[in-house]
Amino acid sequence: MRPIISVVGRSESGKTTLLESLVAELKKRGYKVAVVKHAGAEGFEIDKEGSDTWRLTRAGSDAVAISSPTRVAVIRQVEHDMTPEELVRVVGWDYDLVLTEGFKKSDTPKIEVHRKQQGKELLSSPEALLAVVTDERLDVAVPQFSKDDIKGLANLIEQKLKMEWQEEDTELFINEARILISPITKGILTKVVLSVVSGVKGIGEIRSLNFLVRRKS
Amino acid sequence: MRPIISVVGRSESGKTTLLESLVAELKKRGYKVAVVKHAGAEGFEIDKEGSDTWRLTRAGSDAVAISSPTRVAVIRQVEHDMTPEELVRVVGWDYDLVLTEGFKKSDTPKIEVHRKQQGKELLSSPEALLAVVTDERLDVAVPQFSKDDIKGLANLIEQKLKMEWQEEDTELFINEARILISPITKGILTKVVLSVVSGVKGIGEIRSLNFLVRRKS
Repeated sequence: MRPIISVVGRSESGKTTLLESLVAELKKRGYKVAVVKHAGAEGFEIDKEGSDTWRLTRAGSDAVAISSPTRVAVIRQVEHDMTPEELVRVVGWDYDLVLTEGFKKSDTPKIEVHRKQQGKELLSSPEALLAVVTDERLDVAVPQFSKDDIKGLANLIEQKLKMEWQEEDTELFINEARILISPITKGILTKVVLSVVSGVKGIGEIRSLNFLVRRKS
Repeated sequence: MRPIISVVGRSESGKTTLLESLVAELKKRGYKVAVVKHAGAEGFEIDKEGSDTWRLTRAGSDAVAISSPTRVAVIRQVEHDMTPEELVRVVGWDYDLVLTEGFKKSDTPKIEVHRKQQGKELLSSPEALLAVVTDERLDVAVPQFSKDDIKGLANLIEQKLKMEWQEEDTELFINEARILISPITKGILTKVVLSVVSGVKGIGEIRSLNFLVRRKS
């Protein structure tokens, strides 16, 4: 699994602004970054009324995409509020890091944006926190940064990325759910798949592989 | 691969309107349908200036997503104009049929929307055509429908879906490219993966499986 870090905080605490600076800094350092924002039950507006994507969604499409040479947008209908882990699958696997805005109830490590004027209490328990971005010194044993110390925060994230980065990273999904398998099973699966595949003519170095099966139910 | 059918035709020929009716009819018949629109070099507008997704894209995110309990939108930066086959991977594999608007140069079977007043010539060669939706009788050996005969066109598509629908459907991507493997290799790969996976505790009937590997390069 690619590392996921969630930026959480009260409404208007400055999550999006922090993410903007953080993304710019991480991009400068050469990382490929995806950001996932949690919209909650109020939903979100994205395609303009009357646009082709809007018309095709209204007609009942389960997914609508629009593709250009520089970007692709996809709008999918879903049946439940997805977790950050499920969203990584939807967003794609080709990123070094996925940052989320929101998802305070998820199991992902968190950076909490705290502002003195919004109250004393943190939303997250200290164990869930990777760092706090705060405008006052807090009495928690967690790295604390001012909102202007983006480089310091990016250093901490980079350390975490280097620690978690593995030579080989695998994921298994069955019936759309992420399956946690033992390192042994994972090892066997990877080995057999790579050995069958490397026999295919013209296959050079394998940097990524994606094998999908769908069966009639 | 899920079946892909491309609706092509000159600008203003009525492609989106046809797709709207076709999607509604196919949904009524119980199919899960995705639509992919080709925007070309002019690109597309989707996230409003000033919105959070817009800000995060501008900050340099390689992908930005927004998630609610009913729908998820993803905007990804890409490096080339994707083919319908590549887009199916981006859109997701959980659809019975992917319809595209545009992509007249692709290898996918086509439905061409033809209007008398826009010229005599069809854009597609007859071999590439599944059907023509036309306001005049054309001298080609391809099923022809009036734009109001959505049911007739949907019947033809349904026939095609039933013919192509397989008990088991597999796909292999290596280094982001779709790899065509022989049915024998495909069979071996599916068999070994399913046999390793079915040993995992708590795995019941497998309707879909997705195995991913990413290696440090």
